[in-house]
Amino acid sequence: MAVMITNDIFSCFVFYSVLLVIKMYVIAIITGQVRLRKKAFANPEDALRHGGLQYHREDPYVERCRRAHVNDMENVLPFLFLGAIYSLTGPSLAVARLHFLVFFVGRVLHTIAYLLALRAPTRSLAYIVAQIPCLSMALQILTAVAAYA
Amino acid sequence: MAVMITNDIFSCFVFYSVLLVIKMYVIAIITGQVRLRKKAFANPEDALRHGGLQYHREDPYVERCRRAHVNDMENVLPFLFLGAIYSLTGPSLAVARLHFLVFFVGRVLHTIAYLLALRAPTRSLAYIVAQIPCLSMALQILTAVAAYA
Amino acid sequence: MAVMITNDIFSCFVFYSVLLVIKMYVIAIITGQVRLRKKAFANPEDALRHGGLQYHREDPYVERCRRAHVNDMENVLPFLFLGAIYSLTGPSLAVARLHFLVFFVGRVLHTIAYLLALRAPTRSLAYIVAQIPCLSMALQILTAVAAYA
Repeated sequence: MAVMITNDIFSCFVFYSVLLVIKMYVIAIITGQVRLRKKAFANPEDALRHGGLQYHREDPYVERCRRAHVNDMENVLPFLFLGAIYSLTGPSLAVARLHFLVFFVGRVLHTIAYLLALRAPTRSLAYIVAQIPCLSMALQILTAVAAYA
Repeated sequence: MAVMITNDIFSCFVFYSVLLVIKMYVIAIITGQVRLRKKAFANPEDALRHGGLQYHREDPYVERCRRAHVNDMENVLPFLFLGAIYSLTGPSLAVARLHFLVFFVGRVLHTIAYLLALRAPTRSLAYIVAQIPCLSMALQILTAVAAYA
Repeated sequence: MAVMITNDIFSCFVFYSVLLVIKMYVIAIITGQVRLRKKAFANPEDALRHGGLQYHREDPYVERCRRAHVNDMENVLPFLFLGAIYSLTGPSLAVARLHFLVFFVGRVLHTIAYLLALRAPTRSLAYIVAQIPCLSMALQILTAVAAYA
């Protein structure tokens, strides 16, 4: 196994990151299942296969799933970058794990709050909780590399 | 040239990944060309430059291009992460290349099926084919780093 | 600090990349503020908290912020990948920094042009300027790894 993967901090980052990627895949699967159940397809060719062009239509819950997915792309994908770089800046394992874990829990709660339409501001609070370690990592990385601008 | 790039598996991953990134850029170029040809602009300032505010409007084929692009973001971008990490977990070159190649072919077919509106379920099958190596890589990575959670 | 971060070119790439990630976060914050000010919420539960379901509606400027954010995802996220790999292919520091700086300036101008709705084709030109270093990096990477396909 390669050198990088034997690094504790990087491996801890990878563990939570891959779980979050799988979480994103699950949202895509849920979206597809809701499209089938509600008969609401974004493409005419899919509607034709499932009953007719009248099912080429939008559905509020499908759109909710879409928004949850897009929000994950806006936040989880930058985390995959920030977390990897941050792991290479030499933080302590305990502090690094705290960053990754807070982000992970925040994003899982965000998805639950989105898909279950929990009362506001539950979802927004989960979003903010997850952004705190991201901003912390971004600032620590900038401090580490500012001399190379 | 740096150490990582002299790694066969990582280089194989990089090859297919960069081709897929270029494929995403091509979708963006196609979307722009369709907007110009169909005169359907998302922004009033673009419509004004190309004939008037009446062209600030949606077009079904532009929206199809957009959906193809967003679906690529949902799938190709996580692959860029999973494939890089998976390359570092020490798979055999033949098995790793198979993962990357199946994903690459699946995503190229997905884009073709989307842009040509091929009969369902062609596009969905291409999506599923491409997800198989992603799930395989995700599970192999989790196995490799689970001890560091 | 880890080996990779002591690499000048990689550190230069990381510097501009993290600034661009922060720029994406700023677009998200602006979108949220515009939603509150214009009372235009994508989710009924948010509208209910801020005055009632009549505020579950779209707003043209919120949609503009959304498009700016999505366009960043389409372009900044692939850059995070291309730039990291390109840094490992052994370019000269001056040439590499030029690539990163042109992309950075192009994307900052793109966001400004989008959010201020500057006259066309300002935004499109900024997009094209930023794509040039991306295509250059993509082609240089492909050249470096083509033997491993």
